[in-house]
Parts: sequence; C-alpha cells; structure tokens
Amino acid sequence: MRFIGTKEDGRVVVLGVPLDVTTSFRPGTRFAPSEVRRISFDAIESYSPYLDADIEECDVGDLGDLELPFGNVTGALDIIEREVSRLLERGKRVVCFGGEHLLSLAAVKAHLDVYPDIVVLHVDAHTDLRDEYLGERLSHATVLRRIVDLGADFCQVGVRSGTREEFAFASDRALFFHPFSLPDAGRLSEVLGGRPVYLSLDVDVLDPSCCPGVGTPEPGGVMYSELVGFLAGLSGLNLVGADVVELCPLVDSTGNSAVVGASLLREVILLLCAP
Amino acid sequence: MRFIGTKEDGRVVVLGVPLDVTTSFRPGTRFAPSEVRRISFDAIESYSPYLDADIEECDVGDLGDLELPFGNVTGALDIIEREVSRLLERGKRVVCFGGEHLLSLAAVKAHLDVYPDIVVLHVDAHTDLRDEYLGERLSHATVLRRIVDLGADFCQVGVRSGTREEFAFASDRALFFHPFSLPDAGRLSEVLGGRPVYLSLDVDVLDPSCCPGVGTPEPGGVMYSELVGFLAGLSGLNLVGADVVELCPLVDSTGNSAVVGASLLREVILLLCAP
Amino acid sequence: MRFIGTKEDGRVVVLGVPLDVTTSFRPGTRFAPSEVRRISFDAIESYSPYLDADIEECDVGDLGDLELPFGNVTGALDIIEREVSRLLERGKRVVCFGGEHLLSLAAVKAHLDVYPDIVVLHVDAHTDLRDEYLGERLSHATVLRRIVDLGADFCQVGVRSGTREEFAFASDRALFFHPFSLPDAGRLSEVLGGRPVYLSLDVDVLDPSCCPGVGTPEPGGVMYSELVGFLAGLSGLNLVGADVVELCPLVDSTGNSAVVGASLLREVILLLCAP
Amino acid sequence: MRFIGTKEDGRVVVLGVPLDVTTSFRPGTRFAPSEVRRISFDAIESYSPYLDADIEECDVGDLGDLELPFGNVTGALDIIEREVSRLLERGKRVVCFGGEHLLSLAAVKAHLDVYPDIVVLHVDAHTDLRDEYLGERLSHATVLRRIVDLGADFCQVGVRSGTREEFAFASDRALFFHPFSLPDAGRLSEVLGGRPVYLSLDVDVLDPSCCPGVGTPEPGGVMYSELVGFLAGLSGLNLVGADVVELCPLVDSTGNSAVVGASLLREVILLLCAP
Amino acid sequence: MRFIGTKEDGRVVVLGVPLDVTTSFRPGTRFAPSEVRRISFDAIESYSPYLDADIEECDVGDLGDLELPFGNVTGALDIIEREVSRLLERGKRVVCFGGEHLLSLAAVKAHLDVYPDIVVLHVDAHTDLRDEYLGERLSHATVLRRIVDLGADFCQVGVRSGTREEFAFASDRALFFHPFSLPDAGRLSEVLGGRPVYLSLDVDVLDPSCCPGVGTPEPGGVMYSELVGFLAGLSGLNLVGADVVELCPLVDSTGNSAVVGASLLREVILLLCAP
Amino acid sequence: MRFIGTKEDGRVVVLGVPLDVTTSFRPGTRFAPSEVRRISFDAIESYSPYLDADIEECDVGDLGDLELPFGNVTGALDIIEREVSRLLERGKRVVCFGGEHLLSLAAVKAHLDVYPDIVVLHVDAHTDLRDEYLGERLSHATVLRRIVDLGADFCQVGVRSGTREEFAFASDRALFFHPFSLPDAGRLSEVLGGRPVYLSLDVDVLDPSCCPGVGTPEPGGVMYSELVGFLAGLSGLNLVGADVVELCPLVDSTGNSAVVGASLLREVILLLCAP
Repeated sequence: MRFIGTKEDGRVVVLGVPLDVTTSFRPGTRFAPSEVRRISFDAIESYSPYLDADIEECDVGDLGDLELPFGNVTGALDIIEREVSRLLERGKRVVCFGGEHLLSLAAVKAHLDVYPDIVVLHVDAHTDLRDEYLGERLSHATVLRRIVDLGADFCQVGVRSGTREEFAFASDRALFFHPFSLPDAGRLSEVLGGRPVYLSLDVDVLDPSCCPGVGTPEPGGVMYSELVGFLAGLSGLNLVGADVVELCPLVDSTGNSAVVGASLLREVILLLCAP
Repeated sequence: MRFIGTKEDGRVVVLGVPLDVTTSFRPGTRFAPSEVRRISFDAIESYSPYLDADIEECDVGDLGDLELPFGNVTGALDIIEREVSRLLERGKRVVCFGGEHLLSLAAVKAHLDVYPDIVVLHVDAHTDLRDEYLGERLSHATVLRRIVDLGADFCQVGVRSGTREEFAFASDRALFFHPFSLPDAGRLSEVLGGRPVYLSLDVDVLDPSCCPGVGTPEPGGVMYSELVGFLAGLSGLNLVGADVVELCPLVDSTGNSAVVGASLLREVILLLCAP
Repeated sequence: MRFIGTKEDGRVVVLGVPLDVTTSFRPGTRFAPSEVRRISFDAIESYSPYLDADIEECDVGDLGDLELPFGNVTGALDIIEREVSRLLERGKRVVCFGGEHLLSLAAVKAHLDVYPDIVVLHVDAHTDLRDEYLGERLSHATVLRRIVDLGADFCQVGVRSGTREEFAFASDRALFFHPFSLPDAGRLSEVLGGRPVYLSLDVDVLDPSCCPGVGTPEPGGVMYSELVGFLAGLSGLNLVGADVVELCPLVDSTGNSAVVGASLLREVILLLCAP
Repeated sequence: MRFIGTKEDGRVVVLGVPLDVTTSFRPGTRFAPSEVRRISFDAIESYSPYLDADIEECDVGDLGDLELPFGNVTGALDIIEREVSRLLERGKRVVCFGGEHLLSLAAVKAHLDVYPDIVVLHVDAHTDLRDEYLGERLSHATVLRRIVDLGADFCQVGVRSGTREEFAFASDRALFFHPFSLPDAGRLSEVLGGRPVYLSLDVDVLDPSCCPGVGTPEPGGVMYSELVGFLAGLSGLNLVGADVVELCPLVDSTGNSAVVGASLLREVILLLCAP
Repeated sequence: MRFIGTKEDGRVVVLGVPLDVTTSFRPGTRFAPSEVRRISFDAIESYSPYLDADIEECDVGDLGDLELPFGNVTGALDIIEREVSRLLERGKRVVCFGGEHLLSLAAVKAHLDVYPDIVVLHVDAHTDLRDEYLGERLSHATVLRRIVDLGADFCQVGVRSGTREEFAFASDRALFFHPFSLPDAGRLSEVLGGRPVYLSLDVDVLDPSCCPGVGTPEPGGVMYSELVGFLAGLSGLNLVGADVVELCPLVDSTGNSAVVGASLLREVILLLCAP
Repeated sequence: MRFIGTKEDGRVVVLGVPLDVTTSFRPGTRFAPSEVRRISFDAIESYSPYLDADIEECDVGDLGDLELPFGNVTGALDIIEREVSRLLERGKRVVCFGGEHLLSLAAVKAHLDVYPDIVVLHVDAHTDLRDEYLGERLSHATVLRRIVDLGADFCQVGVRSGTREEFAFASDRALFFHPFSLPDAGRLSEVLGGRPVYLSLDVDVLDPSCCPGVGTPEPGGVMYSELVGFLAGLSGLNLVGADVVELCPLVDSTGNSAVVGASLLREVILLLCAP
C-alpha cells in the first residue's frame, strides 16, 4: 500500500517537517519524512488491527515536506507556524511529521490561536524543560519549556531522563505528570475532560530496542505494544492536532526504526480521523 | 559446540531451504541456513535450560541445504516437496529451516500425504491469508491461504498485521485464532487434542527488537522469553513436523538475529526429539 | 536539486525497473530506483562538469517505477518489454534504471524491433554469457547470452569474471571484446561506426571500492573517474537507448553507492539528451 | 554533562580495564571504556531519576584506562589485581569498567584480601562455571569457577545459558541461584545480610534487544527497566566493589549499546557512592 | 601512540571545531574531533614515512574542542574567530579540525588580520562558491564565496561538483583553478611564490572509496596516495595556517574514515611544523 | 562454485588458522576462514582470468580450521607449527589462511626445517619489525622481526607505516625493500633467483578502500588490480608456501572484504598449484 503520499489533500493532512538544527547528540531527523514515505509503499498495511480502522477508508492527504533553511532556527520555526496556521484556517487537522522536537513549538503556537485552551500531551523520554541548553533557549531540549512560556497547559508521560530541576518543574507545573511509564487512558480522560488536546509524540519514549533510530536514545522506555495500546486509549479524547518527532532513521541500518515510525504515524493519523 | 552440522542423519533431520523468491520488502532469507550454521559453531550451547534437554543427547542429523533454482517458484516448491516426502517415507521427522515462508506450502503438502488430519499451527506476525499478492497466488503473503486450499486445518497465533479481510477470514476459518499475543499451551491442547501438528514458526512473530533481521518487520510482537515459554508449552502436543522461516540475517549487522534463529531452531529440534 | 522526478514526460524518459528475482548472491536491486530518487533531491547537482551539460536544460521525464510481480520472471519481462515498446513507439529515448541485469533482455528486445541493427555495448564485471545458471536459462548470469540468442551484435568491455568458456565465447563472438579495463572511445567508434547503440551499464564494472552496493561484487574493477571518462567518450556514438543496472543500495550502509548510481544515471541521461 | 572523566580522584573511582583476550565469539570489549567515555560527554545526564541521585553531587573520580599487554592473560590479570589492591589500600571504592569478564577474577582477588567474607553477586546471562573452556582454565567462560576456587561465596542471578553441569553446579554451590530472571531485592537481602558484596554485572544479562553490543549475545534476557529496578533494590546491601563488563560497543552500529553501558555505569557508581 | 592529545600547548596547535549546523545532506561532522582523538591512541603512527618526520619530535599541542552553540551560526563563527585570533596573537600556528567547512570562514578572517596578503588554497570536491544556498548566505556550500567577499585571493584544486555558474566564477576569479585532479606542486609554487598560504582541506576531495565518511560524497575524486603526495609537495610553500574539514566519521561503520582523517591531520600538522 | 571446501586432501592444501590474540586495534581476524568459506560457495568463480587457470582443474584440498586456545599465544603457535610441519613432511604445499599475522612465525619456522634457504616475501602495509610492542615480543606488530631472528632472509614490499627505526631496519637488512608500492616482478626475480620463496600476504597492503575489513587499516595502499598483477608476476618464482592474513571480515558490513579475501586466496592457491 501507499498509506501516505497518494492524496494531496484531505480533512487530515500530514506535513513533513525535516527540521534538524539544534540536535545536540546525533543529528539526522531531517531524513525521517523521506525515509518513512519510501518504506511506506511496501512495508506497512493501511489497516490497523489495533484501531480496527483503515487509512484508505479515511480522508487523508499528504502535503509533502516543508523546505526549511539550514542553520536558521527562527526562520524555520516561522515557516512551520505559518504553514500550520494556514492549514488550520482551512479547517484541517494537521499531523506534523518531524524532524526534531523543536518543531512542536511552532505547531503548538499555531494551534493556540485556534484552540486557546488546548492541552499539550507530551509523550517523551526526556523532560525537555530546561530553560536553556548549551547557551541557547531554542533547542530540542527546551521545547516544552518554551511551550509552557506560551501559556499552554501540559501533561507529561513516559519521561525517564532530565535534571533534578526538570523533574521538579514537571511535578509542580504539569496538569498530569506520569514518569517512567504510560498511564491508563481513563486517568488521562479525567484530567483532560473534553478540552482540545495536541499530542506531541517523541518516538524516543519507546525503549531504544524498539526504535534504535533516534537522536537521543534513553534506555528503559516502553515497548511498542504498550505505546500502541496507550494511543488506542486516546480515542476518547478531543484530539485536534499532533506531531510525531525525533525519528532519526539512518542511525538504524536495519531500517526497522523507519517501519516503527511509519506504523506510529498510521495510528496517529487514524486517531485524528475519528469524528 | 556444533549443534547442527555434525551428523548427517538421525531420527530428526534439519533441512536448509534457502528459498528467497517472492519476498516483497527485504530479500535475503536465502542466507539464513548458512549463517546459522556458521555461528552455531561458537555461539550456541547444545543444552537448553528451558527444556532441560541437550541436542548432543538426541538423534539429530543435518542434511545441508537444498539447491533451488532462482526465479522459478513452482520448480523450487516441487524440489522441496519431493525431498520432504522422501524423508517422511523413511520415517524421519523433518525441520525445514528457511528461507521464505512459502516453503511451508511444499512442506505441509508432503506432510498431508502422511498425516491427513494434520493441523498447521501458524505462529507469525502476518496473517498470510491473502488470496493473491501483487498479482501472484504463490507468495510469502498468501502461503497460509494456499495451505487452507489444500484442505488443512490451521490455528493462527501472534498475528498483528494484515488486511481487514484477512483478519475476518482467520476469525471465521481457523480452529483457533489468537491475535496479538501467544496463548496458554493449555488452551491449544484443548483445541488440538492428539491430532498431529505441524508447527510453522515465522520468526517475525517476535518483536523486531528481538529479531531485527527479518524480511517484513512488524512492531508490537512478542519477546523471546514469551516465545520460548510458548514453545516449551507445546511439548504436550503431537508435533510431527516443523519449519522455522523468514530469518533474514544480513539485515542485522550485529549478527544477533542469527543467534536468535539458531536458538529457536535448537528449541524446535528438541521439541521434535521428544518421544 | 531534483534531477529526476520533477517532470513526468520528455524526449528522454527514465523508467524505474525494480526487477529482483534471479539474483544468486545478494538480492536487493529492487530498492535502487526508490533510493536513488530519494537521495537525488539533496545529494546530486543537475550540472555535469564532465559533459558540461545540465539536466535542467534538457527535456527529461521520470515515469516512476514499473510494478512487477514477484517470483514470476517471464511475467515481469513481458511487462518491461511492453512498456519500453510503447515508449519507443511514441518516439522516446528510454533509460531503464534497475533492478537486476535480466531486465536488459526485455529492453533490448523492444529496441530490436525499432533498431534491427542495434549493437549492445555491454559494460560489466561479469561476462553474463552462461547458457544456463543453476538450471535456469533466464538469469542475471545469462542475460547477454539470451540477448545474443535474439540475434543482436554486442561489444563487451571491463569484464573480469566468468568461466573459461564464457571468456572464449566473448573472444569469439563479440564485435569487440576488451576485458579488465575500458577501451579508448576512438577504438569503439571505429568498430561501431554510425550503428545504433544500446548501452547496458552494470555498475559492478566499477571496483567494489567505488560502488560497494552491488549484488555480485568483483574486485579489480575500474575507478569512477575512468568510467565517467569512458562515458564522455561515447558522446560521438549513435546512442539510442540505455540501462543502468545491478545497484543494490542497502548493502552499503554509507549510502554512497546510491550517490554513485545517481551520478552515473545523470551522465547516461545527458548522453541520451545529445541531439 | 561529563559524568566520567572530569575528576581524577574521589572516594569512588572508575577504572577502565580494556581486557579483551579470551573472548571466544566476538571480540571488541577493549573498546568499551573509550567509547563510553566519548559518548558520556553528550548523551547521558548525571542525574538518575531511578535513584534520585546525581553524580555531580558525589565524590567520583575517573582513573582512565589500564594499559594491558595483548595476548598475555596472566600478565594482564596481575596488573589489574595490583592496581585494584593499591586503590583499596587507599580506601577507595572501585568500579572496574571492562573489558571482558575475566577481569573480575583479578578484581575479586584484590577485594578478598580486604573483605575476606565478601560475596560475589554475579548478574549474567551465562553461568561462566566451566572448569576449562577450549582447553584453557583462564577464560571469560570460566571466570566464576576460578572465583569459586578462590574460596569466595557467590550468588548467581539472571543466567539462561550454560551446560547441564554448570546449572547443576550453580544450584548446588551458590548461596542463592535465581536463573532466567532477576529476584526481588528483599530475597537477596535475606541471603546476604550485612556481608560485604561485590557486584559483577555482565551487561549480557540484558536481552540482546536492549544491548546488542555484547560479545556473546543470548536471547531471552531481562529488559533494561527490570535491571535498573533490580539495581535500585541493591541500595540496602553493603556494596563495597563492582564491575560492569562485556560491553562490546562496536558490534552495535547504532551506538545505543554504549549509551546503555554508560547508563548502567552511572547507576552502579551511584550505588557505590551511597554512604 | 597518542599523536594528538598528549601536550596542551606548542608552537603548532590543533583546535577541534565541531561545527555542524548548515550541512544540507548528511550531518555528523561534529563527531570528527572526538572520534579522531579516540582512534589516534591506537591506530596511527606518529612517524610519517611520506614526510620522513615524526610528530613526537615536533612542538605540537592539542587544545581540545571548542564548545559551540547549536543552531546559532553567527554565534558559533564568532567564537571560532575569537579563539583563532587569540592563538595567532600568541604566535601559534593553528590547525582547525572540523566540523563543517563553514568554520574556514571564521579561521580565514582571523588569519587575514595577521597576514593581509594570505592566499587560501582550497582543496575540495565542491566549488562552495554559491552566493546563497537554500536561502542562506552562511552555509558549507557558500563558504568560499564568503571568503572571496572578505577580499582574500584563492586557488581551487580537485573540484568536480558545482553549478555551471560556480565553475565559471572559479575559472574567472581564482589565482589558479585546477578542477578534477591535483596539480604538480611546482605549478602551485610559481603561482604562490612566497605569499602566506592558508590550506583549507575538505576531505571529500578524496574519492568516497577512500573516505566514505563525509557529509556530501562526490564520486570521481583523488586517491589517498595522490593527496598525500600533493601535500608533501606543499612543503616548499609558506604555509601559515590550515584546516581539515567535513569528516563525518559515523557514516562509515568500518571506522576507516576516521583513520584517514587522523592520517591527513598528521601530515598537515607536520607541514605546519616545518621551520 | 565451491572453490574451497569440496576436497579434503590434495597436493596443495588450505588450512584455516583463526589466530586472533595479539591484535592491538580491531580484533576479529578469527572469523576470516569461516566467512570466506561461507561466501565462496556463491560469490567466487573457480576460474581466474588473470592466471588463466581454474581451481577445479587443480589438486587442492581444504583441511578446515585449526582449533586454537584463546589467550595462549605460545600454545597456539605450537599447534600451528606442528600441523604445518606434519603437512610438509607429507609433501604438501600449504596455504595458511588467517587469522592474524603472527601465525606466519609458526608457519615460516616449519618451512625453514624443510627449506633452509627460504626467503620470506613480505607484502604488507606495516613493517612489523618492532622488537617488542606494548611490552610483548610475540605480536602481529613484531612478527617479521621474530622471523628475522629465526635467520630467514626477507624481502619487504608495499609498506607505508612504521617507526623511523623500522624503516631503517628494513632498508638495512632486507634482501629487497620496496616501500609504498609493488615492484616489477622482474626485479624480484633478479633478487630471488631460484631460491624457495614463502609468500606472506597481509591483505592490508591493499588500500582500505579495496579491503575495508582489516584489523589495522592504513590509507595509501595499492589497488586490487595492482596486487593481482603483482601476484601474477610471481609465477616465475619458486614459491613453496604461503599465507594470507589479517582479513577482519565483520568490520565491513558490505561483506565485500570477504570477497576480496576469497579472490586473493584463489590466486595464491593457483600460484602454488603451478608445477
């Protein structure tokens, strides 16, 4: 099948965002959109038995990749924000497919205009709550802190790496903080009620065994089947936007990480297709 | 130790079947027999603590690899079927070590002549129940459907990928259908009673983290310890033949997938050695 | 740049032919078209300083990849031949981008109808002149012999591997046989005069150091700069069709082999664009 | 951060021991110390949320790597023993970072002089209890047997590979034998009471999916989160010395195994820092 | 030996510059300094038989790596320029070891203050003369153009990739332009006379077979022995500064590219040590 | 074909010697014999067009691999020497296939008994003439010095790495010293006359681009076609024994280094088969 790339428009749209500028350990997230498209032709079914839903029965378009300047962080973030805003104005639901995590800052900013009470559901191995990192305030390691600065509420689940200060900040400020593993969907529903939710899914929440191809591997993560079960549980939420970020496919010469990224993208798209 | 390759005959025989023709995503299963033999000299113990049994105490032979024509599916299947039939006529129990999954069609056909009420126990990530795939009826993606066409009963466990139609077909037609994970052995015993069982073990039932070197990786699978526990539970069944297929060792540059394949082969051989 | 994939038609057309069925050592040529397209977006200039020509100034289209059945050699060859014939009837010059070498049989057959006195210029590490290989007459190892059976004349250059019989056959039957290295273009012009020429370029004519990602590596080959110089020398010939085959990109985890394949494809396209 | 390498002395010291001589399957453990140091600059936080402790708040030094002769087992073991003894005399707690498992023989010998009633807590996939291996008595496959010969008591947990005789020996002779998985810390505390404990942690106790880069991969191991939980449970013991061995980082081209090794080293260091 | 890293000061100093921001194809040059240091301990002799000189007999120091902000090009360039200026003021000769090619802009700027009539000898596969690239004026693909903007003269040798305009610009503006291969040293001496020379050596001037680990591989380059011969020929020039850039070691899982980078660094250091 | 492994005896015999103990940089030569055997089944022709000779027309046997103790250098060397002596007594010509270079010490010792005036023709990137290395006198880096200690004459060609002292020693003591490249065969014939010659071929004499899988890569070597031409020129010498050493196949994930090793082994065997 070709689960992405066959239609150029739809109610739900996938936007490739090959941002790859502030990565401090292993760069290469820029290759995720093209690699996932390439393998999606042959390696992935359009039908998800987990959600009992099929992308070919949904209204999904693929907008291709944004062209971003290299080495210019603010210029790139502006381009992303403008494009997401343009799509939201046209009534789309948008899935940004990274690229590095910093793209979420631009995407959330665009969503905040339309959904002022949006909650960011941050699924990640890392707290990403530093105020600055290596002297920079805009970084994949500060992205959630910058999102907090925008005034958005957030939940954080699955984290297992950060400074003592970041863990304290998350404990203190998150609507819901669930480190080390993924919570029951019921618990999240209680917290989030019917508020609009933006899902920011950093694939490194998975154990590196499940997805070796990430920029900042952190052992001790969740297994794929736990994550896909967690995602299925989100179907009761009011999900209005999402991103899937930090896949760094070329690190993994087996190619399996790209298959994992494509599979997660399928699940996230299907979640956003729900009525 | 040299757990395979030391004896040329035995009551249980291992037959290398480097079939590698219809693979649609990543080819290379042809290398599994030679790679597993190579590493089995140094990397694997002959003793299984899971089964408390030792191959060196059993009567096991290694017949080497079949020579198969490239690009000629029906010719290759004929060669496999003839050889397995010849061995069954001599009273052997045969473990075919692939090679791609399509070889099971030939092996099951040979077993059906000797065991007309045989049940195929299909352990796999994929349903393999398409009626045709990319225009072809003989394919690693249709193999179980062709086996059903032969009139054999089947159980299917561990599957997590396929079309909506295939999941419906399996639900409807399998003696026992247990997707996503592996069932308790007790449940299988109830279903299978004393009927002769042919185990067809596609190593991609494992999560790709456990066995990255497969042709069609599918995230969300079972862990090695779950699979080896499941196999130990089969010792109460009337197992009369088996195959281990779809290992694609060169995909995994660590070499660990070949070690996994060799370890599973040891367990399957030991199961067939039981009286 | 995007040197292929931007236009869907042109006087010269590139056709991806992911044939990958009879490969006897390392399969994977099926991935060459998609991998070369993927990296051509970022890694290759459209301008060739060797030929002082730019693809963006030429009329070149990319027809995408043929869909071929797996495990059905004759079916696949029929599809290739029909498509190339259709394009030749419309007055196109066609570059088939493999995929395995056997595709040349179908492509040459289609060209023979239009150019009955065509000469196949075979650039390869291997003689490919066996009458059969592993019991099959249709194989990447027999392709030139089958082309000879069609009645086409051929030149063979760069070969360094084969049986004693194949070397004798080539010596005896080729219009021009130049093993081990590449001849001066002047010598070829003398032999070929103004006859229509079909270039069949197996990338394994390169030393494996220059292009590690091939199905059947053979040490002792020519360097990239020698090959690109040889190709530049062909600009005086009456080149009417070509293929570039046997790139097996995933073997080479550096990705450099795909860059080499894309670079050679650029040169071959530019040669066919010459008036 | 630079969690190792910033200070040259401390109450707890890390000593790189690149011993790599008797490995029978895949050599390369010699590279573990340098590779772990290299990635520890960028890839690992100094704070462990599992232990709620931070290396930067502890008194930890890095002594660099021992220089060992190649191909001279007894010479190398002497150097290791002398250096560890020298450090113990100065009141240090020592973490030897391998290197192959045989180094534990020298390290334990040095500890036995200072702590005559020490118990070796052996966490490994392999029993390492052969009396000789391939004709040699000093080997990574005999190391625990040699330690037993020194008169030390031992516990063995997590093992899943060995001969029938080794399993019987362990059952018979270990203070506590817990194969296949990791026991509750409470159970260990009962057995060990307040006796001084030397932790010998072979990273191959992890499933190869979690740490592919080991010399002797053995499927069916524990997950990283289980291991890190087990280690956290050791904080109640009287831990006086430790080693982390058998990481073979270059086997794993993703680099993730080195990150796992560095993360485990952080936990072990923090355990030894406890008062 | 430890050919770098043993002394912290000297008349010639090596400065690691892990800049890795504007790379458009494959990032990862940031890892070159640490990887080259790591392998230089064991893999490289301090004696060069090509130059009959030994680093251990020279006055060479290693200053470690600069700490650079991620995603902030101008900030990083400022840091580099300040540090090189500081070293030049102290009378050092500086070898910057990259990192991406853009660092040469900062290093040349610092040298121009001290040597106003300096000539940049640019050895590279790529012209790097675009006025902007993907909308940015500061890029690894524009670095030489920016250096020309500073008013420095330049020679360009070995280039084989660029736009038609860049080749024209180089032909027109370079003191000496020698594409495709490396010129005789005599010819360069004539052009450069006794003027101070800054050598900017992009390792991708080598054929990718010799150094697969580069950010932008370009087939058709020179062999290592040609390059080392060319460098030996530079000993008659008035060399006052140098850089070695664009090594991207992790792309090459054999590790050989890092050995090539370390070997070239040895030759360049020895050239700068000459009186 | 199966160019080795089909016959168990012959006038020329191949002996696998997986010695891998003193390697100081990258271990793994132990895997060369098994890997070369594995790929020789499918990847190599038995006919050499360079020598116009076919192994299938010669009397060649494969004796399999010696079993060597790990970590015991002198024990291993004794086993090798005894076995080679036994074969020479039976009138065989022996090709030892390594394994690390130190094996040549044992093999030459055995040959010296039978051919007291033998000359060792040392083809290598490294001088291997240190008197000791890392404190050891038996090492892959001292092997030629130890052979000189035995009283054997030697020629050394192709070397490009060593200390200043080693280059001086070679200049002074070798019958013929030809660094950096390979000499004309005629020149060697003059020097060697009809004396018996033992060829010791370290595959790292090749440039690492041609054979990336070696323990100690050294850039600047000869190309495969130069080496094979040099070997063809040896057919006029009185070659009585040979080894091919230092192939480290797993370093090279493309598998091409094993193909190079197998191809060189074919040429060397054919040279020894000459009457």
